Amino acid sequence: MCLSKVYFERGGRKEVFLEEVASVTVDDGKLRLKTLFGEQKEINARIKEIDLLAHNILLADSGVNST
Amino acid sequence: MCLSKVYFERGGRKEVFLEEVASVTVDDGKLRLKTLFGEQKEINARIKEIDLLAHNILLADSGVNST
Repeated sequence: MCLSKVYFERGGRKEVFLEEVASVTVDDGKLRLKTLFGEQKEINARIKEIDLLAHNILLADSGVNST
Repeated sequence: MCLSKVYFERGGRKEVFLEEVASVTVDDGKLRLKTLFGEQKEINARIKEIDLLAHNILLADSGVNST
């Protein structure tokens, strides 16, 4: 199973935003995340990094860099 | 192994851009893709969808919608 843990980076700190994520859809700057269990979450953010080996996706503010 | 096949969508058609992708880094609208074997590719595009179960990442034009 290749689910990912999704982190949100804010001010240099990484916080877990959602776990067991199965898909991420980008829609006009908004991200829609779905877990294997059907949970859905939306966030105004941008994808900063996808690490498929570590099973991590890193999000950041969609606007100006905050780090 | 959770490597992904990366597709680029142009004019409603999906083309394989890179296979066995291990990581994607987003840098100012530019995507840097790395395969497990160390191959690197850059592309001016945006991530449209990540499907971790299907092992697919879909890219699209970074500018205006082309579909």
